[in-house]
Amino acid sequence: MDLLTLIGLIAAVSTIVIAIATSSGLESFVNVPGILIVVLGTMAVTLIKHRMSSVVSAFRMAFGEAFRDKTENPLTLILQIRDLADIVRKKGILGLEDYDTEHPFMKKSINLAVDGHSPEFVEEALTHELQQTLERYENAERVFRGIGESSPALGMIGTLVGLVQMLNQMDDPASIGPAMAIALLTTFYGVFLAQVIFLPMADKLQLKMQDEQRNMTLILTSMGNILEGQNPRVMQEMLSAYLSPENRSRLEAET
Amino acid sequence: MDLLTLIGLIAAVSTIVIAIATSSGLESFVNVPGILIVVLGTMAVTLIKHRMSSVVSAFRMAFGEAFRDKTENPLTLILQIRDLADIVRKKGILGLEDYDTEHPFMKKSINLAVDGHSPEFVEEALTHELQQTLERYENAERVFRGIGESSPALGMIGTLVGLVQMLNQMDDPASIGPAMAIALLTTFYGVFLAQVIFLPMADKLQLKMQDEQRNMTLILTSMGNILEGQNPRVMQEMLSAYLSPENRSRLEAET
Amino acid sequence: MDLLTLIGLIAAVSTIVIAIATSSGLESFVNVPGILIVVLGTMAVTLIKHRMSSVVSAFRMAFGEAFRDKTENPLTLILQIRDLADIVRKKGILGLEDYDTEHPFMKKSINLAVDGHSPEFVEEALTHELQQTLERYENAERVFRGIGESSPALGMIGTLVGLVQMLNQMDDPASIGPAMAIALLTTFYGVFLAQVIFLPMADKLQLKMQDEQRNMTLILTSMGNILEGQNPRVMQEMLSAYLSPENRSRLEAET
Amino acid sequence: MDLLTLIGLIAAVSTIVIAIATSSGLESFVNVPGILIVVLGTMAVTLIKHRMSSVVSAFRMAFGEAFRDKTENPLTLILQIRDLADIVRKKGILGLEDYDTEHPFMKKSINLAVDGHSPEFVEEALTHELQQTLERYENAERVFRGIGESSPALGMIGTLVGLVQMLNQMDDPASIGPAMAIALLTTFYGVFLAQVIFLPMADKLQLKMQDEQRNMTLILTSMGNILEGQNPRVMQEMLSAYLSPENRSRLEAET
Amino acid sequence: MDLLTLIGLIAAVSTIVIAIATSSGLESFVNVPGILIVVLGTMAVTLIKHRMSSVVSAFRMAFGEAFRDKTENPLTLILQIRDLADIVRKKGILGLEDYDTEHPFMKKSINLAVDGHSPEFVEEALTHELQQTLERYENAERVFRGIGESSPALGMIGTLVGLVQMLNQMDDPASIGPAMAIALLTTFYGVFLAQVIFLPMADKLQLKMQDEQRNMTLILTSMGNILEGQNPRVMQEMLSAYLSPENRSRLEAET
Repeated sequence: MDLLTLIGLIAAVSTIVIAIATSSGLESFVNVPGILIVVLGTMAVTLIKHRMSSVVSAFRMAFGEAFRDKTENPLTLILQIRDLADIVRKKGILGLEDYDTEHPFMKKSINLAVDGHSPEFVEEALTHELQQTLERYENAERVFRGIGESSPALGMIGTLVGLVQMLNQMDDPASIGPAMAIALLTTFYGVFLAQVIFLPMADKLQLKMQDEQRNMTLILTSMGNILEGQNPRVMQEMLSAYLSPENRSRLEAET
Repeated sequence: MDLLTLIGLIAAVSTIVIAIATSSGLESFVNVPGILIVVLGTMAVTLIKHRMSSVVSAFRMAFGEAFRDKTENPLTLILQIRDLADIVRKKGILGLEDYDTEHPFMKKSINLAVDGHSPEFVEEALTHELQQTLERYENAERVFRGIGESSPALGMIGTLVGLVQMLNQMDDPASIGPAMAIALLTTFYGVFLAQVIFLPMADKLQLKMQDEQRNMTLILTSMGNILEGQNPRVMQEMLSAYLSPENRSRLEAET
Repeated sequence: MDLLTLIGLIAAVSTIVIAIATSSGLESFVNVPGILIVVLGTMAVTLIKHRMSSVVSAFRMAFGEAFRDKTENPLTLILQIRDLADIVRKKGILGLEDYDTEHPFMKKSINLAVDGHSPEFVEEALTHELQQTLERYENAERVFRGIGESSPALGMIGTLVGLVQMLNQMDDPASIGPAMAIALLTTFYGVFLAQVIFLPMADKLQLKMQDEQRNMTLILTSMGNILEGQNPRVMQEMLSAYLSPENRSRLEAET
Repeated sequence: MDLLTLIGLIAAVSTIVIAIATSSGLESFVNVPGILIVVLGTMAVTLIKHRMSSVVSAFRMAFGEAFRDKTENPLTLILQIRDLADIVRKKGILGLEDYDTEHPFMKKSINLAVDGHSPEFVEEALTHELQQTLERYENAERVFRGIGESSPALGMIGTLVGLVQMLNQMDDPASIGPAMAIALLTTFYGVFLAQVIFLPMADKLQLKMQDEQRNMTLILTSMGNILEGQNPRVMQEMLSAYLSPENRSRLEAET
Repeated sequence: MDLLTLIGLIAAVSTIVIAIATSSGLESFVNVPGILIVVLGTMAVTLIKHRMSSVVSAFRMAFGEAFRDKTENPLTLILQIRDLADIVRKKGILGLEDYDTEHPFMKKSINLAVDGHSPEFVEEALTHELQQTLERYENAERVFRGIGESSPALGMIGTLVGLVQMLNQMDDPASIGPAMAIALLTTFYGVFLAQVIFLPMADKLQLKMQDEQRNMTLILTSMGNILEGQNPRVMQEMLSAYLSPENRSRLEAET
């Protein structure tokens, strides 16, 4: 998760909290039993749906990296790849040994190439690595989407419970309003958690997965080309197709 | 977005505004806090779901080009392609150098051909370009569809907030009606934004993407055929299959 | 659209009109502003979603051919194909020149064969033609399904508008009932248009598309076989698989 | 449809009828105009959606065979196939002529083999037959699913009609309850028809289709193997993979 | 189903039961006719949708193995496979005869290899076995998802029945509340069964299926490699891609 996701989350929660606070007190929107039904219930259902380890790794992926924006710009990658291709043409594959990069997947692919494995082996190993990464993202997305499907359901269950209780105790008409307000609160909690937090986060994770896939595919393909000794200029032309128009003109400016 | 989309947007908004204005005052449909919950909330959620740059480029794509209808008629393209094929047969590929066209993708493919790249290289570069364009459309469609899914959800959250507040203050029966009216307004805003503006725009973007894909595929395929020196007549027969019946007879009339 | 679709449409509309007319007056179900919101609103939204030409061609396809059932029975086609194969074996391909058929796609494929094009060319041209036809059906289906999705949404918007207006004017309790009745009418219009007219029509168009695809594929495949001079008996055996059991025994009876 | 489907249908309908009958009279749940709207309306809409012949054949497939469970156990088929393979190895393909089987698809494949057609021809003819059968099942499933989608929609239309009428005649408060009860009945009819009868039937038809597909594929594959003279033991080992664990041990016991 | 699923189930049910018990008596949430409509109705509908044997095997798969967590860690499997490869390189394939493993699929693949079948045959037999296992999981998932779709529908039917009865007997206003409470209970039962029990279980079964598929594919692929005499080190490198990063470093530590 990157910084903007965090800002979005804070903005979304603030918007609703401020809207509530300005037109009535916030305290009438806090109902502890209702919060427990929705939160504990969703947690329990999530435990049925997924493995504990999946849930932990999904939350770690989503929140643990909240302040880093790990997905690198394809432009940076392409410039690095051009450097790699230059080095290989000048010093041979072993020249890559001292090349320093921060992108873990590129580092891994350089190591594999330097170790003298065949291009086929390098490609197969990197493909497996790529699939592993995608699977971790898919798992995180699935966990978040699962929570986003369960929490409104548990909100609805809480509201049904509240309505049945209210309808059984209609002796005092004055209490109907507040009782129904409390019943509606669990639906509010469930929809809020799903639509403002978990479903949007699942969408963002899906997006990040596509970015990673594109970046890793870009590296995977170019490593193969480099090992086969392709011309760096041809490669750059080819790779520039991965860029948005602005980045492409920046790339051309740099050449 | 083309002119008709703009007319449709104006017509749709007017229909509803006029319907409201004729049967009651418009002012009872303006509720600033409700508008803020739906609009700011949806914006914040959109920031969680997408990258800022995606959102900006989606809106630029959708609104920035509102008065131009960029998607060219396949008939125009086919006539141009026939000209290109004629030129290549008469003067060779270099004869294309002076050919002038407004379609950026055709211009790019002519440049690549004139530069003396191999047909395989031209095809691969154009295919990458095609995928880039489709990705930009897909991104814009996804952003708009995402907004169209979030805004009714935030409308519903606003209505739940309003209902809970109303139910907690039912002392004065006379205020129940107006309070509930205000609660319902956020649902109205959310559904209106989604169903009248953002979801239809997402559909139109999907359509435009298909048009672009067809046009670009048409150019891509014929450039390959031209570089291999295929007969212009056979090509025209082939390409005419991309046309609707009316356009096809117009093409035959022109020959 | 065939005759039965028209009968179905009339029957569906009558059922509901009669049900209304027998239990109350029809006039209480006619609310001009409500009809305008749903009909004009849906039209405007449809203009945003699709190109004008797509909408026109979708309606022409659906209603213009209302009294003709163009989709031919595969049995008729197979008998014609057997005749064609016989003619080709006896008189050569040029013998087809005088063959008369009403099915436009078969006529086109005969013309192509008689013109002396290579089997590959004939197949490619017919495949393009087939795709064009399918695309026209898909377009019509998409337009109708799009209307069927928008009209209930506009009905709901109309109802929300009506409810807000009613809740703001609850001074006279006697007027609440009729006001809410009017508010509900737009939902009724929207659901009626979608579920009784447009969505079923979209389903029928999808079905017709599959029929056309099967018939055109049948012709396409057999033209190829005929041009390669395959045995008519073997072909008939093969083609009989396209038939339902009843039609198959009828085909065997005719042989 | 097999016997258990019929038992399920009877049990489902009885459960609800008994639940109604024990807590109130059944007569308050019979509303002839409501039944007509839902049943006639759904029939009319079904006529728009499908061809008459499709609807007839779907109902014949679903109800006409209600008391027969035609789908044979794969174990029976595998034992028969082993016999066939044995016969072919001992007496040649013509030895199959006297083999008697009840499964129509196996009978057809034996006939084709005995007639001396090439293995390719047999396979192609059987594949077409298989596709035809699957298409008939798909058609029936689609018809039933279509009814299951339309009947709640017509129930909702009926309820909207009833509510509008009720809201227009609210002079007598005592009549509101019964009027609204009648309005709700059409929703009840629609949901009941869809969720208790047509959608579950569509699911069962889908299941049967998969069974038929597996059985027919099993026969198709083994006929090919038999015609190529493969070893019966190897074939049995191969085919046993189609069986559930219990059936597999039974098969091994029989050998 | 593993232990955590059971804990999740108990936690989810307890959360809701405790929430009810603390705010009102549990007895007002027990309505025997309502429970019968939802439970018996769903059972009957499930009988229409599926075969009895499928339902039995789905429940046996889900509940019968509740206290065992059968899915093995891929790390354990890879270590075993390395041992197998070592043995084969030292003693030949027959050396596997004494190898003992608990994983039934690995045992089966060893047996097939030791029996002297060709690598192709082993692979084909194991592939069939793999498909059978996946089909059993798919069946169980489909049964549970089917129940999760039917139970809310039957809850809604029960609520409609209750509402119609209540609306017909509105003479005593004091009884409206409790009557409506009872009507709502069936919706509560249906949603509870679907969202807290059956749909989450279906999700877990889907997950288990993917785990089994990965493990069985891992065994299947490596058995092929072993039979072809591939280098154990190369295989381990290859297989390590199936592991999460932590497991991978553990694997490297063990080497």
